[in-house]
Amino acid sequence: MAKQSPVIAPSILSADFARLGEDTRKVLDAGAQWVHFDVMDNHYVPNLTIGPMVLKALRDYGIAEHIDVHLMVKPVDRIVPDFAKAGARSISFHPEATEHVDRTIQLIKDEGCEAGLVFNPATPLSWLDYVMDKIDMVLIMSVNPGFGGQKFIPSALDKIRHVRERIDASGRAIRLEVDGGVTPDNIGKISAAGADTFVAGSAIFNAPDYADVIRRMHAAIDGRGSLPV
Amino acid sequence: MAKQSPVIAPSILSADFARLGEDTRKVLDAGAQWVHFDVMDNHYVPNLTIGPMVLKALRDYGIAEHIDVHLMVKPVDRIVPDFAKAGARSISFHPEATEHVDRTIQLIKDEGCEAGLVFNPATPLSWLDYVMDKIDMVLIMSVNPGFGGQKFIPSALDKIRHVRERIDASGRAIRLEVDGGVTPDNIGKISAAGADTFVAGSAIFNAPDYADVIRRMHAAIDGRGSLPV
Amino acid sequence: MAKQSPVIAPSILSADFARLGEDTRKVLDAGAQWVHFDVMDNHYVPNLTIGPMVLKALRDYGIAEHIDVHLMVKPVDRIVPDFAKAGARSISFHPEATEHVDRTIQLIKDEGCEAGLVFNPATPLSWLDYVMDKIDMVLIMSVNPGFGGQKFIPSALDKIRHVRERIDASGRAIRLEVDGGVTPDNIGKISAAGADTFVAGSAIFNAPDYADVIRRMHAAIDGRGSLPV
Amino acid sequence: MAKQSPVIAPSILSADFARLGEDTRKVLDAGAQWVHFDVMDNHYVPNLTIGPMVLKALRDYGIAEHIDVHLMVKPVDRIVPDFAKAGARSISFHPEATEHVDRTIQLIKDEGCEAGLVFNPATPLSWLDYVMDKIDMVLIMSVNPGFGGQKFIPSALDKIRHVRERIDASGRAIRLEVDGGVTPDNIGKISAAGADTFVAGSAIFNAPDYADVIRRMHAAIDGRGSLPV
Amino acid sequence: MAKQSPVIAPSILSADFARLGEDTRKVLDAGAQWVHFDVMDNHYVPNLTIGPMVLKALRDYGIAEHIDVHLMVKPVDRIVPDFAKAGARSISFHPEATEHVDRTIQLIKDEGCEAGLVFNPATPLSWLDYVMDKIDMVLIMSVNPGFGGQKFIPSALDKIRHVRERIDASGRAIRLEVDGGVTPDNIGKISAAGADTFVAGSAIFNAPDYADVIRRMHAAIDGRGSLPV
Amino acid sequence: MAKQSPVIAPSILSADFARLGEDTRKVLDAGAQWVHFDVMDNHYVPNLTIGPMVLKALRDYGIAEHIDVHLMVKPVDRIVPDFAKAGARSISFHPEATEHVDRTIQLIKDEGCEAGLVFNPATPLSWLDYVMDKIDMVLIMSVNPGFGGQKFIPSALDKIRHVRERIDASGRAIRLEVDGGVTPDNIGKISAAGADTFVAGSAIFNAPDYADVIRRMHAAIDGRGSLPV
Repeated sequence: MAKQSPVIAPSILSADFARLGEDTRKVLDAGAQWVHFDVMDNHYVPNLTIGPMVLKALRDYGIAEHIDVHLMVKPVDRIVPDFAKAGARSISFHPEATEHVDRTIQLIKDEGCEAGLVFNPATPLSWLDYVMDKIDMVLIMSVNPGFGGQKFIPSALDKIRHVRERIDASGRAIRLEVDGGVTPDNIGKISAAGADTFVAGSAIFNAPDYADVIRRMHAAIDGRGSLPV
Repeated sequence: MAKQSPVIAPSILSADFARLGEDTRKVLDAGAQWVHFDVMDNHYVPNLTIGPMVLKALRDYGIAEHIDVHLMVKPVDRIVPDFAKAGARSISFHPEATEHVDRTIQLIKDEGCEAGLVFNPATPLSWLDYVMDKIDMVLIMSVNPGFGGQKFIPSALDKIRHVRERIDASGRAIRLEVDGGVTPDNIGKISAAGADTFVAGSAIFNAPDYADVIRRMHAAIDGRGSLPV
Repeated sequence: MAKQSPVIAPSILSADFARLGEDTRKVLDAGAQWVHFDVMDNHYVPNLTIGPMVLKALRDYGIAEHIDVHLMVKPVDRIVPDFAKAGARSISFHPEATEHVDRTIQLIKDEGCEAGLVFNPATPLSWLDYVMDKIDMVLIMSVNPGFGGQKFIPSALDKIRHVRERIDASGRAIRLEVDGGVTPDNIGKISAAGADTFVAGSAIFNAPDYADVIRRMHAAIDGRGSLPV
Repeated sequence: MAKQSPVIAPSILSADFARLGEDTRKVLDAGAQWVHFDVMDNHYVPNLTIGPMVLKALRDYGIAEHIDVHLMVKPVDRIVPDFAKAGARSISFHPEATEHVDRTIQLIKDEGCEAGLVFNPATPLSWLDYVMDKIDMVLIMSVNPGFGGQKFIPSALDKIRHVRERIDASGRAIRLEVDGGVTPDNIGKISAAGADTFVAGSAIFNAPDYADVIRRMHAAIDGRGSLPV
Repeated sequence: MAKQSPVIAPSILSADFARLGEDTRKVLDAGAQWVHFDVMDNHYVPNLTIGPMVLKALRDYGIAEHIDVHLMVKPVDRIVPDFAKAGARSISFHPEATEHVDRTIQLIKDEGCEAGLVFNPATPLSWLDYVMDKIDMVLIMSVNPGFGGQKFIPSALDKIRHVRERIDASGRAIRLEVDGGVTPDNIGKISAAGADTFVAGSAIFNAPDYADVIRRMHAAIDGRGSLPV
Repeated sequence: MAKQSPVIAPSILSADFARLGEDTRKVLDAGAQWVHFDVMDNHYVPNLTIGPMVLKALRDYGIAEHIDVHLMVKPVDRIVPDFAKAGARSISFHPEATEHVDRTIQLIKDEGCEAGLVFNPATPLSWLDYVMDKIDMVLIMSVNPGFGGQKFIPSALDKIRHVRERIDASGRAIRLEVDGGVTPDNIGKISAAGADTFVAGSAIFNAPDYADVIRRMHAAIDGRGSLPV
């Protein structure tokens, strides 16, 4: 299967929560295609972030683009319909966080969303063995979710390659997303390893010019390094 | 102990999360004294709302008023320092949600915040028996936290009276806050029963004129019914 | 409030599960008014018994009498609608087994059933303080639920008296049910202490003649001791 | 290892719980070899069914055939001896539902039963890597356990083939059971993929003539399609 | 009921775990009557200390005195028989840490030990309402168990008085033990409030002369203040 | 990667807890290189043993050798710093016992200790797929942790071989430790399969002469069978 067209998905965790509509609008206007929406419940990870009501407020504000929900919660199923109703386009979850992985995938799809599986840095890929005919996305964590101050974990590149092979073998249009320590400097290598969807938080929101960073990211994905465009 | 001066604390859950700084500023300028910050973790209650990063964003936006955190989370202790660091002035929790109620009270105070105990509608007041020398606030729930579409539970009035007696007997300046179904129409009775701090969500944020509702609430508290001021 | 008319509620746990329709029909025809349906989940108590599908099968068999469900499960809320749909008339639960006692009571009533609170032998009655305007039944355990081979705990008699006083003071028609070690020999004392609804398992189902035991129970309740009728 | 002789194991969940002895007798007399006994605890799956007392009642009724217990409970160990004492012949469990898979296998065997591992649709087979010298059965779920209204998941056929290869390589007499959406129409394919033991619920119990369905199932297993016998 | 004769129970947590037999022997020879054995499981409290094998080693070493086990674990029941077999004389537990308080009391007594209920600083005494006919000891925590660096909580004195009244009213020989921040300086007041059994850790084990501290404690209990003997 | 030099690590669980410093000193003087420190929390396994305070006491006693902590606890992270501060040199944990395996490895290393992953008998090795560049040790359980009276599980030998291959392929100096039923009689085979670090409890501590057993173990490792030295 050919790789999907590249997508930059800024993580809303680095946006300004006091002006969330405006900041989200701005980053999308600057060239980002998706919004990545990080949900933490203080149980699966040691932090609590934002839930369905915040997503709904973005839709009401006028954000119509793809909102990509990453559930760092355990258990998963009860909150899936809440996010679907609030306006999520895709919902990803960790296989360790639910008793019934196949059932959760079906639930997400029955709610009208795309379904993804997320892999923590050490989680083996065997959870993919019997779901490649159903999922729409694989999200590889290149840092540990919910913990601050981490850098891109180098062994994630191998893992991305292994997922790429599985996706190609499946013949299905499954996105390969990467989250954690993605910057204009390493996004080229990450893309070369097989990823097509890139989450970035502080690398974008802490930059003075969102559009410039996103441009440089796309350039690096296209193999034009970090040359100015 | 004489009752504290009345405080109206709009619940941020009914504010516009896409323009949270602006909407919070507006409701405070309209006469509200506090902001009530409802934290749900999808475990203690079946919803997930907002966490410390959102509170921090309000402080960075310039909101300097009293932010009053109500933790509907279980367990409690791990997240207390996060909220204190983010800028909470008071933190309340449910006694059923921690193994060590006295310890959690001390933790909140050690972090520089005021500490409150929250009582669900059916929870007995015996949890107050040995903490009246330590707490700064009692929060009586007049609806069940985390579930939508409920009205003020009438038996809460008796409970408010019982807490008032305990506070008066303690001789300490402990606030008596009420949360759930509070409106300009019933706030006079709630105040008469002994409450001094009033959380209101949709009653304020869904009104066309925040200042008008808050004025009518204060008037009713003062015994001037719902007469226009 | 005057006591309700006495009810004998044989516990289905002592019936023959291979012929459950027939054995239930037989005990009701022998003079029992209710069927007591004991649900254990292997978490709240160390046993797993029967669920909603078994209750539904009794309704389909033609049992139209009051089926009184005692939930020894934790948590409670998810399974309440299942039992209501299956045909439960009343549903009782343990206050320690739910985070939101008032909410669970409302849920049971919204599903069209009567709601009861169950008290383990050592559980204090303070859970009744703010729900007497809502509940339909109080169930006092006179043995520890889910553990075999226990006798009626004598201190339960005092507890029954205390509940009786609270019910009388409420002015509402709340049933006072007792479960655990009830026999024709002690049912007179239990009734004199204030109970009006009596669960009995092996005392009835292990007897050669169900009708005779139930007659002797009613006689003892009426103060006619265990004299043959 | 040659495949075991085929076994049809009707799931008791579709039997009439008000006449369980009679209905079980009937389906066994109609040609079924085993009874499949589905245990759900409302924690591992969102339903609660039947426990050891119901199994014991079947033995007391005179059912002497193989009763095959499928534990959809978490944790597993405490209830294993209860089912062994009640009369289970084989007990299967989910590897995710116990902390110590090898220990639970040993516990089941020490209690005198055959031990099986059950795989949810998405669970990888790597849990088989170091237990093939100990287990007596592998149960492949072709629907998600505990959720209603599902059809046979097609990717289960591949999984069955992979298990077949592992069993053949082990040289041991391990049964390969399949549960979920099995009908006379697809049982031939399932058998061809390598299964030898077939759970079916509504396909048998909802049919007017149990014997006819079971005959058609055996015919399909033997490769005689769904031709009338 | 007259107060029991005073008992000093050094907390083994402050002993030298590398020479536990010798240090325990020494403190008992210095005049302590009991050994207080603090068990923490890293779940009920954030620490993990020592279990049944350590207690057994003390018995094997020759310690024949009363070993008083305080379980800061949740849940409670599974480990009770282990401690009884290892040689515990009394076992106390927190009512919040078990689903079935009465059952746990009976289990401890069935295992041949005395049973106690422990109250955290904020826990109400209502858990005593229906067990005064069964328990052998009430343990009042005057610090929060499992957290370091705390001082005696003053409101514990009132609580001790309330327990004393309940014990006296019961007419039974129930010990009233106090644990947390007990020193020669405050033990007189604690005794005067009604306690008869006193746990002390660092106050004894950190002193150069165990016998001297214990003598001063007994003197203060006898009302001879902290005068040298 | 060449195998590490062999290490015998006596399990402290079989030492005399009343004379722990002395017994530990003795076994180290008898030729053991490490002390293996088994931590059980009564949740991950059904036993509770010893915690950080006991380890600290050994350091204070003068034990300066490598103390190798095996955490049979769940969750893992909170207690890691406690053991590091108490003096642990290496800390191993079970991948099933933490939500974030990579994060826990990093935490252990950030605390200045070596990090190991432990595999229960049935746990697949796929948890090694993406951590071989980070870990310092793999611990293969050849019995089920926390349960008594078990013998060396034969299929562990294959597993040891598979781990050996992975370590050799990694090119890193990762130790391969084995725990459970190790004796002078089977240690030669275990070493031949690829292990270099050997935990033994009763085999050493129950022997009359520690030095003799350890000598025989080393001889067997060196391929000199169980010949006397």
